[in-house]
Amino acid sequence: MVRERDLLRWIADRAPVGDDCAVLECAPWGTLLVSTDSVIDGVHLRWDREGPEAFGYKAVARGMSDVAAMGGEPLWAVIAVCLPKGVTEEQAHGVYRGAEGAGCALVGGDTSFGPLAYVAATVFGRAHAKGPVLRSGARPSDGIFVTGPLGGSYESGRHYRFTPRVAEVKRLMDQVDISAMIDLSDGLSTDLLHILEASGAGCRLEAEAIPVNEGATLEGALTDGEDYELLLTAREGDEGLVRIGTITDGEAVLVFSDGREEALRARGWEHEG
Amino acid sequence: MVRERDLLRWIADRAPVGDDCAVLECAPWGTLLVSTDSVIDGVHLRWDREGPEAFGYKAVARGMSDVAAMGGEPLWAVIAVCLPKGVTEEQAHGVYRGAEGAGCALVGGDTSFGPLAYVAATVFGRAHAKGPVLRSGARPSDGIFVTGPLGGSYESGRHYRFTPRVAEVKRLMDQVDISAMIDLSDGLSTDLLHILEASGAGCRLEAEAIPVNEGATLEGALTDGEDYELLLTAREGDEGLVRIGTITDGEAVLVFSDGREEALRARGWEHEG
Repeated sequence: MVRERDLLRWIADRAPVGDDCAVLECAPWGTLLVSTDSVIDGVHLRWDREGPEAFGYKAVARGMSDVAAMGGEPLWAVIAVCLPKGVTEEQAHGVYRGAEGAGCALVGGDTSFGPLAYVAATVFGRAHAKGPVLRSGARPSDGIFVTGPLGGSYESGRHYRFTPRVAEVKRLMDQVDISAMIDLSDGLSTDLLHILEASGAGCRLEAEAIPVNEGATLEGALTDGEDYELLLTAREGDEGLVRIGTITDGEAVLVFSDGREEALRARGWEHEG
Repeated sequence: MVRERDLLRWIADRAPVGDDCAVLECAPWGTLLVSTDSVIDGVHLRWDREGPEAFGYKAVARGMSDVAAMGGEPLWAVIAVCLPKGVTEEQAHGVYRGAEGAGCALVGGDTSFGPLAYVAATVFGRAHAKGPVLRSGARPSDGIFVTGPLGGSYESGRHYRFTPRVAEVKRLMDQVDISAMIDLSDGLSTDLLHILEASGAGCRLEAEAIPVNEGATLEGALTDGEDYELLLTAREGDEGLVRIGTITDGEAVLVFSDGREEALRARGWEHEG
Protein backbone atom coordinates (compact mmCIF):
# COMPACT_ATOMS: atom_id res chain seq x y z
CA MET A 1 0.00 0.00 0.00
CA VAL A 2 1.17 3.50 -0.80
CA ARG A 3 2.23 5.68 2.14
CA GLU A 4 0.14 8.84 2.24
CA ARG A 5 3.16 11.03 2.95
CA ASP A 6 5.16 9.60 0.06
CA LEU A 7 2.23 10.05 -2.30
CA LEU A 8 1.60 13.66 -1.28
CA ARG A 9 5.29 14.46 -1.80
CA TRP A 10 5.20 12.80 -5.23
CA ILE A 11 2.14 14.89 -6.15
CA ALA A 12 3.67 18.11 -4.79
CA ASP A 13 6.73 17.55 -6.99
CA ARG A 14 4.56 17.35 -10.11
CA ALA A 15 1.97 20.11 -9.76
CA PRO A 16 2.98 23.72 -9.09
CA VAL A 17 0.53 24.01 -6.21
CA GLY A 18 0.92 27.32 -4.44
CA ASP A 19 0.39 26.73 -0.75
CA ASP A 20 -3.30 26.38 0.09
CA CYS A 21 -4.48 27.18 -3.43
CA ALA A 22 -3.36 26.96 -7.00
CA VAL A 23 -2.31 30.44 -8.15
CA LEU A 24 -3.32 31.29 -11.72
CA GLU A 25 -2.47 34.54 -13.44
CA CYS A 26 -5.43 36.14 -15.23
CA ALA A 27 -4.00 39.61 -15.75
CA PRO A 28 -5.26 42.25 -15.96
CA TRP A 29 -8.35 40.89 -14.15
CA GLY A 30 -6.18 39.59 -11.34
CA THR A 31 -4.81 36.41 -9.82
CA LEU A 32 -7.20 33.46 -9.59
CA LEU A 33 -6.86 31.31 -6.45
CA VAL A 34 -8.32 27.80 -6.68
CA SER A 35 -8.79 25.19 -3.96
CA THR A 36 -10.45 21.77 -4.22
CA ASP A 37 -11.46 19.58 -1.25
CA SER A 38 -13.48 16.45 -0.57
CA VAL A 39 -15.78 15.70 2.36
CA ILE A 40 -16.46 11.95 2.40
CA ASP A 41 -18.91 9.92 4.50
CA GLY A 42 -16.99 7.96 7.13
CA VAL A 43 -13.74 9.83 6.47
CA HIS A 44 -14.41 13.51 7.27
CA LEU A 45 -18.02 13.43 8.49
CA ARG A 46 -20.79 10.91 8.96
CA TRP A 47 -23.90 11.30 6.81
CA ASP A 48 -26.13 9.66 9.46
CA ARG A 49 -24.76 11.79 12.29
CA GLU A 50 -23.77 15.25 11.00
CA GLY A 51 -26.29 15.22 8.16
CA PRO A 52 -26.34 16.38 4.51
CA GLU A 53 -26.11 20.13 5.20
CA ALA A 54 -22.83 19.61 7.06
CA PHE A 55 -21.35 17.92 3.96
CA GLY A 56 -22.21 20.81 1.66
CA TYR A 57 -21.24 23.45 4.20
CA LYS A 58 -17.90 21.97 5.24
CA ALA A 59 -16.72 21.23 1.69
CA VAL A 60 -17.31 24.80 0.52
CA ALA A 61 -16.20 26.46 3.77
CA ARG A 62 -12.85 24.62 3.69
CA GLY A 63 -12.19 25.94 0.21
CA MET A 64 -13.17 29.46 1.25
CA SER A 65 -10.76 29.20 4.16
CA ASP A 66 -7.96 28.18 1.76
CA VAL A 67 -8.64 31.18 -0.48
CA ALA A 68 -8.76 33.51 2.55
CA ALA A 69 -5.47 32.04 3.84
CA MET A 70 -3.73 33.31 0.71
CA GLY A 71 -5.17 36.78 1.21
CA GLY A 72 -7.91 36.30 -1.35
CA GLU A 73 -11.63 36.85 -1.56
CA PRO A 74 -13.66 33.70 -2.34
CA LEU A 75 -16.05 34.49 -5.21
CA TRP A 76 -17.51 31.28 -6.60
CA ALA A 77 -17.87 27.58 -5.84
CA VAL A 78 -18.80 24.48 -7.82
CA ILE A 79 -19.58 21.14 -6.19
CA ALA A 80 -19.43 17.56 -7.46
CA VAL A 81 -21.86 15.62 -5.28
CA CYS A 82 -22.39 11.89 -4.87
CA LEU A 83 -25.68 11.03 -3.17
CA PRO A 84 -26.14 7.60 -1.60
CA LYS A 85 -28.77 5.27 -2.99
CA GLY A 86 -32.15 5.80 -1.31
CA VAL A 87 -31.46 9.47 -0.50
CA THR A 88 -34.60 11.48 0.25
CA GLU A 89 -35.46 14.77 -1.42
CA GLU A 90 -34.94 16.56 1.89
CA GLN A 91 -31.44 15.09 2.26
CA ALA A 92 -30.49 15.88 -1.34
CA HIS A 93 -31.66 19.47 -0.97
CA GLY A 94 -29.81 19.68 2.35
CA VAL A 95 -26.43 19.19 0.65
CA TYR A 96 -27.05 22.15 -1.65
CA ARG A 97 -28.51 24.34 1.10
CA GLY A 98 -25.45 23.62 3.23
CA ALA A 99 -23.13 24.49 0.34
CA GLU A 100 -24.98 27.76 -0.29
CA GLY A 101 -24.93 28.54 3.43
CA ALA A 102 -21.15 28.77 3.45
CA GLY A 103 -21.52 32.20 1.85
CA CYS A 104 -19.92 31.81 -1.57
CA ALA A 105 -21.92 31.97 -4.83
CA LEU A 106 -22.63 28.40 -5.95
CA VAL A 107 -22.31 28.64 -9.73
CA GLY A 108 -22.37 25.05 -10.88
CA GLY A 109 -22.31 21.42 -9.99
CA ASP A 110 -22.51 17.80 -10.94
CA THR A 111 -24.71 15.23 -9.22
CA SER A 112 -24.16 11.46 -9.21
CA PHE A 113 -25.89 8.63 -7.36
CA GLY A 114 -23.50 6.07 -5.91
CA PRO A 115 -22.58 3.85 -3.02
CA LEU A 116 -21.71 6.62 -0.54
CA ALA A 117 -22.09 10.33 0.11
CA TYR A 118 -19.39 12.82 -0.72
CA VAL A 119 -19.08 16.44 -1.75
CA ALA A 120 -16.01 17.62 -3.69
CA ALA A 121 -16.03 21.42 -3.69
CA THR A 122 -13.86 23.69 -5.79
CA VAL A 123 -13.74 27.28 -4.57
CA PHE A 124 -12.15 30.04 -6.58
CA GLY A 125 -11.45 33.60 -5.67
CA ARG A 126 -9.29 36.56 -6.48
CA ALA A 127 -6.10 37.48 -4.70
CA HIS A 128 -5.86 40.91 -3.10
CA ALA A 129 -4.22 43.59 -5.24
CA LYS A 130 -1.10 43.23 -3.07
CA GLY A 131 -0.80 39.70 -4.51
CA PRO A 132 -1.28 36.28 -2.94
CA VAL A 133 0.16 35.75 0.55
CA LEU A 134 2.42 32.68 0.61
CA ARG A 135 3.72 30.53 3.45
CA SER A 136 7.30 31.39 2.62
CA GLY A 137 7.49 35.07 3.59
CA ALA A 138 8.07 34.91 7.37
CA ARG A 139 11.25 36.77 8.47
CA PRO A 140 13.12 36.86 11.81
CA SER A 141 11.58 39.28 14.35
CA ASP A 142 8.14 39.12 12.66
CA GLY A 143 5.36 38.56 15.17
CA ILE A 144 3.28 35.37 15.00
CA PHE A 145 -0.49 35.94 15.26
CA VAL A 146 -3.78 34.02 15.23
CA THR A 147 -7.29 35.29 14.57
CA GLY A 148 -9.01 33.40 17.40
CA PRO A 149 -8.99 30.62 20.00
CA LEU A 150 -7.92 27.08 19.13
CA GLY A 151 -8.53 23.46 20.12
CA GLY A 152 -11.47 21.14 20.68
CA SER A 153 -12.87 21.50 17.16
CA TYR A 154 -14.08 17.89 16.89
CA GLU A 155 -15.70 17.64 20.33
CA SER A 156 -17.55 20.93 19.82
CA GLY A 157 -18.63 20.28 16.22
CA ARG A 158 -16.88 23.49 15.13
CA HIS A 159 -15.00 21.51 12.44
CA TYR A 160 -18.12 21.55 10.26
CA ARG A 161 -19.74 24.79 11.52
CA PHE A 162 -16.78 27.19 11.49
CA THR A 163 -16.95 30.54 9.74
CA PRO A 164 -14.15 30.97 7.18
CA ARG A 165 -12.14 34.08 8.08
CA VAL A 166 -13.04 35.98 4.93
CA ALA A 167 -14.07 39.26 6.59
CA GLU A 168 -10.94 39.22 8.75
CA VAL A 169 -8.71 38.75 5.70
CA LYS A 170 -10.35 41.67 3.95
CA ARG A 171 -9.56 43.91 6.94
CA LEU A 172 -6.07 42.49 7.47
CA MET A 173 -5.00 42.84 3.84
CA ASP A 174 -5.76 46.54 4.03
CA GLN A 175 -4.36 47.18 7.52
CA VAL A 176 -1.49 44.78 8.13
CA ASP A 177 1.62 43.87 6.13
CA ILE A 178 1.23 40.11 6.32
CA SER A 179 4.46 38.28 5.48
CA ALA A 180 3.12 34.69 5.58
CA MET A 181 -0.27 33.07 6.25
CA ILE A 182 -1.97 29.67 6.46
CA ASP A 183 -5.32 28.44 7.74
CA LEU A 184 -5.23 26.21 10.80
CA SER A 185 -6.44 22.88 9.47
CA ASP A 186 -3.74 20.47 10.73
CA GLY A 187 -3.23 22.09 14.16
CA LEU A 188 -1.12 25.05 15.26
CA SER A 189 2.14 23.14 15.68
CA THR A 190 1.98 21.41 12.27
CA ASP A 191 0.75 24.49 10.41
CA LEU A 192 3.33 26.78 12.03
CA LEU A 193 6.03 24.28 11.03
CA HIS A 194 4.72 24.51 7.43
CA ILE A 195 5.34 28.28 7.51
CA LEU A 196 8.76 27.86 9.17
CA GLU A 197 9.85 25.22 6.66
CA ALA A 198 8.68 27.27 3.68
CA SER A 199 10.31 30.42 5.09
CA GLY A 200 13.55 28.77 6.30
CA ALA A 201 13.01 30.22 9.77
CA GLY A 202 12.52 29.25 13.42
CA CYS A 203 10.28 30.59 16.17
CA ARG A 204 9.72 31.23 19.83
CA LEU A 205 6.10 30.25 20.41
CA GLU A 206 4.79 31.44 23.79
CA ALA A 207 2.68 28.63 25.32
CA GLU A 208 0.67 30.85 27.65
CA ALA A 209 -0.12 33.38 24.93
CA ILE A 210 -1.95 30.84 22.76
CA PRO A 211 -5.73 31.42 23.02
CA VAL A 212 -7.46 28.16 23.91
CA ASN A 213 -11.16 27.40 23.39
CA GLU A 214 -13.31 26.73 26.44
CA GLY A 215 -13.10 23.03 27.22
CA ALA A 216 -9.90 22.56 25.20
CA THR A 217 -6.30 22.21 26.40
CA LEU A 218 -3.02 23.74 25.25
CA GLU A 219 -2.15 20.39 23.72
CA GLY A 220 -5.50 20.43 21.89
CA ALA A 221 -4.83 23.96 20.62
CA LEU A 222 -1.49 22.76 19.26
CA THR A 223 -2.60 19.48 17.72
CA ASP A 224 -6.39 19.04 17.31
CA GLY A 225 -6.59 20.79 13.94
CA GLU A 226 -9.59 21.98 11.92
CA ASP A 227 -9.86 25.27 13.82
CA TYR A 228 -9.90 27.20 10.54
CA GLU A 229 -8.60 30.30 12.28
CA LEU A 230 -5.74 32.00 10.45
CA LEU A 231 -2.10 31.84 11.48
CA LEU A 232 0.00 34.67 10.14
CA THR A 233 3.25 36.53 10.53
CA ALA A 234 3.78 40.29 10.29
CA ARG A 235 6.01 43.07 11.64
CA GLU A 236 3.00 44.40 13.50
CA GLY A 237 -0.52 43.08 14.07
CA ASP A 238 -3.73 44.91 14.87
CA GLU A 239 -6.38 44.85 17.59
CA GLY A 240 -8.16 41.88 16.01
CA LEU A 241 -5.14 39.57 16.29
CA VAL A 242 -3.59 37.66 19.19
CA ARG A 243 0.19 37.63 19.24
CA ILE A 244 1.53 34.21 20.22
CA GLY A 245 5.24 34.41 19.45
CA THR A 246 8.10 35.64 17.29
CA ILE A 247 9.87 34.35 14.19
CA THR A 248 13.60 33.74 14.72
CA ASP A 249 16.57 32.46 12.76
CA GLY A 250 17.03 29.67 15.33
CA GLU A 251 15.15 26.49 16.14
CA ALA A 252 11.37 26.13 16.50
CA VAL A 253 10.75 26.21 20.24
CA LEU A 254 7.75 26.37 22.52
CA VAL A 255 8.55 28.54 25.54
CA PHE A 256 6.73 28.55 28.90
CA SER A 257 6.57 31.44 31.34
CA ASP A 258 8.51 29.42 33.94
CA GLY A 259 11.49 29.40 31.58
CA ARG A 260 11.07 25.89 30.18
CA GLU A 261 11.74 25.49 26.45
CA GLU A 262 10.64 22.52 24.37
CA ALA A 263 11.27 21.68 20.72
CA LEU A 264 8.11 22.32 18.67
CA ARG A 265 7.02 19.19 16.82
CA ALA A 266 4.21 18.36 14.40
CA ARG A 267 2.43 16.47 17.17
CA GLY A 268 2.67 19.37 19.67
CA TRP A 269 6.03 19.37 21.41
CA GLU A 270 8.72 17.03 22.67
CA HIS A 271 7.29 15.92 26.01
CA GLU A 272 10.48 14.00 26.70
CA GLY A 273 12.42 17.19 25.74
CA MET B 1 -36.18 8.43 -2.56
CA VAL B 2 -35.58 11.55 -4.60
CA ARG B 3 -36.14 11.30 -8.36
CA GLU B 4 -32.98 12.27 -10.21
CA ARG B 5 -34.86 14.37 -12.76
CA ASP B 6 -36.72 16.32 -10.07
CA LEU B 7 -33.50 16.95 -8.18
CA LEU B 8 -31.62 18.16 -11.25
CA ARG B 9 -34.46 20.55 -12.08
CA TRP B 10 -34.47 21.84 -8.49
CA ILE B 11 -30.71 22.45 -8.72
CA ALA B 12 -30.96 24.10 -12.14
CA ASP B 13 -33.52 26.54 -10.74
CA ARG B 14 -31.11 27.63 -7.99
CA ALA B 15 -27.72 27.97 -9.66
CA PRO B 16 -27.24 30.10 -12.76
CA VAL B 17 -25.45 27.26 -14.56
CA GLY B 18 -24.73 28.20 -18.16
CA ASP B 19 -25.14 25.11 -20.26
CA ASP B 20 -22.14 22.77 -19.96
CA CYS B 21 -20.11 25.18 -17.83
CA ALA B 22 -20.56 27.96 -15.34
CA VAL B 23 -19.88 31.25 -17.14
CA LEU B 24 -18.03 33.85 -15.06
CA GLU B 25 -17.09 37.30 -16.22
CA CYS B 26 -13.47 38.20 -15.46
CA ALA B 27 -13.16 41.23 -17.72
CA PRO B 28 -10.84 42.41 -19.13
CA TRP B 29 -9.02 39.05 -18.93
CA GLY B 30 -12.02 37.28 -20.43
CA THR B 31 -14.87 34.93 -19.60
CA LEU B 32 -14.01 32.04 -17.31
CA LEU B 33 -15.72 28.72 -18.10
CA VAL B 34 -15.82 26.15 -15.28
CA SER B 35 -17.00 22.55 -15.32
CA THR B 36 -16.93 19.97 -12.50
CA ASP B 37 -17.49 16.22 -12.94
CA SER B 38 -17.13 13.03 -10.93
CA VAL B 39 -15.94 9.62 -12.09
CA ILE B 40 -16.92 7.04 -9.45
CA ASP B 41 -15.98 3.37 -9.13
CA GLY B 42 -18.99 1.21 -9.98
CA VAL B 43 -20.97 4.15 -11.38
CA HIS B 44 -18.96 5.52 -14.32
CA LEU B 45 -16.01 3.11 -14.48
CA ARG B 46 -14.69 0.12 -12.63
CA TRP B 47 -11.37 0.52 -10.81
CA ASP B 48 -10.56 -3.21 -11.16
CA ARG B 49 -11.39 -3.28 -14.87
CA GLU B 50 -10.59 0.08 -16.50
CA GLY B 51 -7.83 0.93 -14.02
CA PRO B 52 -6.64 4.10 -12.20
CA GLU B 53 -5.41 5.99 -15.29
CA ALA B 54 -8.88 5.79 -16.84
CA PHE B 55 -10.34 7.50 -13.74
CA GLY B 56 -7.95 10.45 -13.93
CA TYR B 57 -8.16 10.70 -17.70
CA LYS B 58 -11.93 10.50 -18.02
CA ALA B 59 -12.66 12.98 -15.22
CA VAL B 60 -10.43 15.68 -16.71
CA ALA B 61 -11.30 14.92 -20.35
CA ARG B 62 -15.05 15.28 -19.62
CA GLY B 63 -14.45 18.74 -18.17
CA MET B 64 -12.29 19.71 -21.15
CA SER B 65 -15.08 18.56 -23.46
CA ASP B 66 -17.56 20.77 -21.57
CA VAL B 67 -15.30 23.81 -21.93
CA ALA B 68 -14.76 23.07 -25.64
CA ALA B 69 -18.53 22.69 -26.11
CA MET B 70 -18.97 26.33 -25.08
CA GLY B 71 -16.34 27.46 -27.55
CA GLY B 72 -13.63 27.75 -24.92
CA GLU B 73 -10.06 26.66 -24.48
CA PRO B 74 -9.42 24.46 -21.41
CA LEU B 75 -6.47 25.89 -19.47
CA TRP B 76 -6.24 24.33 -16.02
CA ALA B 77 -7.60 21.42 -13.99
CA VAL B 78 -7.72 20.52 -10.31
CA ILE B 79 -8.72 17.07 -9.06
CA ALA B 80 -10.14 15.86 -5.74
CA VAL B 81 -9.19 12.19 -5.54
CA CYS B 82 -10.36 9.46 -3.20
CA LEU B 83 -8.11 6.39 -3.22
CA PRO B 84 -9.43 3.08 -1.93
CA LYS B 85 -7.81 1.51 1.11
CA GLY B 86 -4.90 -0.75 0.16
CA VAL B 87 -4.12 1.21 -3.03
CA THR B 88 -0.61 0.58 -4.38
CA GLU B 89 1.84 3.33 -5.27
CA GLU B 90 1.55 2.37 -8.94
CA GLN B 91 -2.26 2.70 -8.82
CA ALA B 92 -2.13 6.03 -6.98
CA HIS B 93 0.36 7.44 -9.48
CA GLY B 94 -1.79 6.09 -12.30
CA VAL B 95 -4.70 8.37 -11.37
CA TYR B 96 -2.49 11.46 -11.63
CA ARG B 97 -0.76 10.28 -14.81
CA GLY B 98 -4.16 9.69 -16.38
CA ALA B 99 -5.35 13.16 -15.34
CA GLU B 100 -2.21 14.76 -16.79
CA GLY B 101 -2.59 12.71 -19.97
CA ALA B 102 -5.88 14.43 -20.81
CA GLY B 103 -3.83 17.41 -21.94
CA CYS B 104 -4.80 20.18 -19.54
CA ALA B 105 -2.35 21.66 -16.99
CA LEU B 106 -3.00 19.97 -13.65
CA VAL B 107 -2.51 22.81 -11.17
CA GLY B 108 -3.76 21.42 -7.89
CA GLY B 109 -5.51 18.68 -6.06
CA ASP B 110 -6.68 17.06 -2.88
CA THR B 111 -6.12 13.43 -1.96
CA SER B 112 -8.20 11.39 0.50
CA PHE B 113 -8.18 7.72 1.41
CA GLY B 114 -11.64 6.21 1.71
CA PRO B 115 -13.92 3.29 1.00
CA LEU B 116 -13.97 3.63 -2.80
CA ALA B 117 -12.18 5.25 -5.72
CA TYR B 118 -13.38 8.46 -7.32
CA VAL B 119 -11.95 11.47 -9.10
CA ALA B 120 -13.83 14.79 -9.08
CA ALA B 121 -12.22 17.08 -11.65
CA THR B 122 -12.81 20.79 -12.11
CA VAL B 123 -11.62 22.21 -15.41
CA PHE B 124 -11.16 25.96 -16.03
CA GLY B 125 -10.93 27.55 -19.43
CA ARG B 126 -11.38 30.80 -21.23
CA ALA B 127 -14.15 31.52 -23.72
CA HIS B 128 -13.22 32.57 -27.24
CA ALA B 129 -13.15 36.33 -27.84
CA LYS B 130 -16.49 35.93 -29.68
CA GLY B 131 -17.98 34.94 -26.32
CA PRO B 132 -19.26 31.62 -24.98
CA VAL B 133 -21.41 29.52 -27.33
CA LEU B 134 -24.72 28.60 -25.67
CA ARG B 135 -27.29 25.93 -26.43
CA SER B 136 -29.94 28.52 -27.06
CA GLY B 137 -28.76 30.14 -30.30
CA ALA B 138 -30.05 27.70 -32.96
CA ARG B 139 -32.30 29.39 -35.58
CA PRO B 140 -34.55 27.95 -38.32
CA SER B 141 -32.63 27.01 -41.50
CA ASP B 142 -29.32 26.63 -39.59
CA GLY B 143 -27.53 23.41 -40.48
CA ILE B 144 -26.99 20.74 -37.82
CA PHE B 145 -23.44 19.32 -37.74
CA VAL B 146 -21.31 16.81 -35.82
CA THR B 147 -17.52 16.54 -35.61
CA GLY B 148 -17.31 12.74 -36.01
CA PRO B 149 -18.97 9.33 -35.94
CA LEU B 150 -21.24 8.26 -33.10
CA GLY B 151 -22.37 5.17 -31.21
CA GLY B 152 -20.82 2.17 -29.51
CA SER B 153 -18.79 4.20 -27.03
CA TYR B 154 -19.17 1.73 -24.16
CA GLU B 155 -18.47 -1.45 -26.12
CA SER B 156 -15.36 0.08 -27.70
CA GLY B 157 -14.01 1.70 -24.52
CA ARG B 158 -14.02 5.09 -26.24
CA HIS B 159 -16.03 6.52 -23.33
CA TYR B 160 -12.83 6.74 -21.26
CA ARG B 161 -10.28 7.13 -24.07
CA PHE B 162 -11.89 9.82 -26.20
CA THR B 163 -10.01 12.95 -27.23
CA PRO B 164 -11.87 16.13 -26.20
CA ARG B 165 -12.50 18.21 -29.33
CA VAL B 166 -10.34 21.13 -28.25
CA ALA B 167 -8.36 21.52 -31.47
CA GLU B 168 -11.56 21.33 -33.54
CA VAL B 169 -13.19 24.08 -31.45
CA LYS B 170 -10.19 26.32 -31.93
CA ARG B 171 -10.51 25.94 -35.72
CA LEU B 172 -14.30 26.20 -35.74
CA MET B 173 -14.45 29.34 -33.60
CA ASP B 174 -12.24 31.10 -36.14
CA GLN B 175 -13.87 29.69 -39.29
CA VAL B 176 -17.55 29.06 -38.57
CA ASP B 177 -20.33 31.19 -37.09
CA ILE B 178 -21.59 28.64 -34.57
CA SER B 179 -25.09 29.49 -33.28
CA ALA B 180 -25.39 26.70 -30.67
CA MET B 181 -23.19 23.85 -29.44
CA ILE B 182 -23.14 20.94 -26.97
CA ASP B 183 -20.89 17.93 -26.45
CA LEU B 184 -22.47 14.55 -27.09
CA SER B 185 -22.54 12.97 -23.65
CA ASP B 186 -26.17 11.80 -23.38
CA GLY B 187 -26.58 10.65 -26.99
CA LEU B 188 -27.43 12.54 -30.18
CA SER B 189 -31.21 12.49 -29.73
CA THR B 190 -31.15 13.73 -26.12
CA ASP B 191 -28.44 16.32 -26.69
CA LEU B 192 -30.06 17.66 -29.86
CA LEU B 193 -33.34 17.99 -27.92
CA HIS B 194 -31.41 20.04 -25.30
CA ILE B 195 -30.41 22.49 -28.04
CA LEU B 196 -33.93 22.55 -29.52
CA GLU B 197 -35.55 23.15 -26.14
CA ALA B 198 -33.09 25.92 -25.22
CA SER B 199 -33.50 27.52 -28.67
CA GLY B 200 -37.28 27.06 -28.95
CA ALA B 201 -36.84 25.33 -32.30
CA GLY B 202 -37.48 22.06 -34.13
CA CYS B 203 -35.44 20.04 -36.62
CA ARG B 204 -35.33 17.67 -39.54
CA LEU B 205 -32.63 15.17 -38.67
CA GLU B 206 -31.58 13.01 -41.63
CA ALA B 207 -31.16 9.42 -40.42
CA GLU B 208 -28.86 8.29 -43.24
CA ALA B 209 -26.61 11.35 -42.89
CA ILE B 210 -25.64 10.54 -39.30
CA PRO B 211 -22.09 9.12 -39.22
CA VAL B 212 -22.07 5.83 -37.29
CA ASN B 213 -19.01 4.20 -35.77
CA GLU B 214 -17.92 0.80 -37.09
CA GLY B 215 -19.80 -1.86 -35.16
CA ALA B 216 -22.47 0.58 -33.97
CA THR B 217 -26.03 1.06 -35.22
CA LEU B 218 -28.12 4.15 -36.01
CA GLU B 219 -30.00 3.54 -32.79
CA GLY B 220 -26.67 3.42 -30.92
CA ALA B 221 -25.57 6.68 -32.57
CA LEU B 222 -28.80 8.30 -31.38
CA THR B 223 -28.87 6.93 -27.84
CA ASP B 224 -25.61 5.35 -26.58
CA GLY B 225 -24.10 8.60 -25.34
CA GLU B 226 -20.55 9.44 -24.23
CA ASP B 227 -19.30 9.99 -27.77
CA TYR B 228 -17.84 13.37 -26.77
CA GLU B 229 -18.03 14.57 -30.35
CA LEU B 230 -19.52 18.05 -30.73
CA LEU B 231 -23.02 18.77 -31.99
CA LEU B 232 -23.46 22.28 -33.34
CA THR B 233 -25.66 24.48 -35.47
CA ALA B 234 -24.52 27.12 -37.95
CA ARG B 235 -25.60 28.80 -41.20
CA GLU B 236 -22.68 27.03 -42.90
CA GLY B 237 -20.20 24.39 -41.75
CA ASP B 238 -16.73 23.59 -43.04
CA GLU B 239 -14.90 20.57 -44.46
CA GLY B 240 -14.26 19.13 -40.97
CA LEU B 241 -17.97 18.83 -40.14
CA VAL B 242 -20.67 16.36 -41.15
CA ARG B 243 -24.07 17.92 -41.83
CA ILE B 244 -26.88 15.75 -40.43
CA GLY B 245 -29.95 17.97 -40.67
CA THR B 246 -31.59 21.37 -40.49
CA ILE B 247 -33.13 23.47 -37.72
CA THR B 248 -36.82 24.30 -38.33
CA ASP B 249 -39.63 26.12 -36.59
CA GLY B 250 -41.68 22.91 -36.57
CA GLU B 251 -41.46 19.65 -34.64
CA ALA B 252 -38.32 17.61 -34.00
CA VAL B 253 -38.43 14.83 -36.58
CA LEU B 254 -36.11 12.10 -37.79
CA VAL B 255 -36.47 11.67 -41.56
CA PHE B 256 -35.48 8.63 -43.60
CA SER B 257 -34.57 8.61 -47.32
CA ASP B 258 -37.63 6.46 -48.09
CA GLY B 259 -39.83 9.32 -46.93
CA ARG B 260 -40.69 7.99 -43.48
CA GLU B 261 -40.76 10.59 -40.67
CA GLU B 262 -40.63 9.78 -36.98
CA ALA B 263 -40.87 12.01 -33.92
CA LEU B 264 -37.42 12.48 -32.35
CA ARG B 265 -37.42 11.41 -28.70
CA ALA B 266 -34.80 11.38 -25.96
CA ARG B 267 -34.53 7.59 -26.29
CA GLY B 268 -34.03 7.71 -30.09
CA TRP B 269 -37.31 7.95 -31.91
CA GLU B 270 -40.92 6.80 -31.66
CA HIS B 271 -40.75 3.26 -33.04
CA GLU B 272 -44.52 3.01 -32.83
CA GLY B 273 -44.66 6.23 -34.93
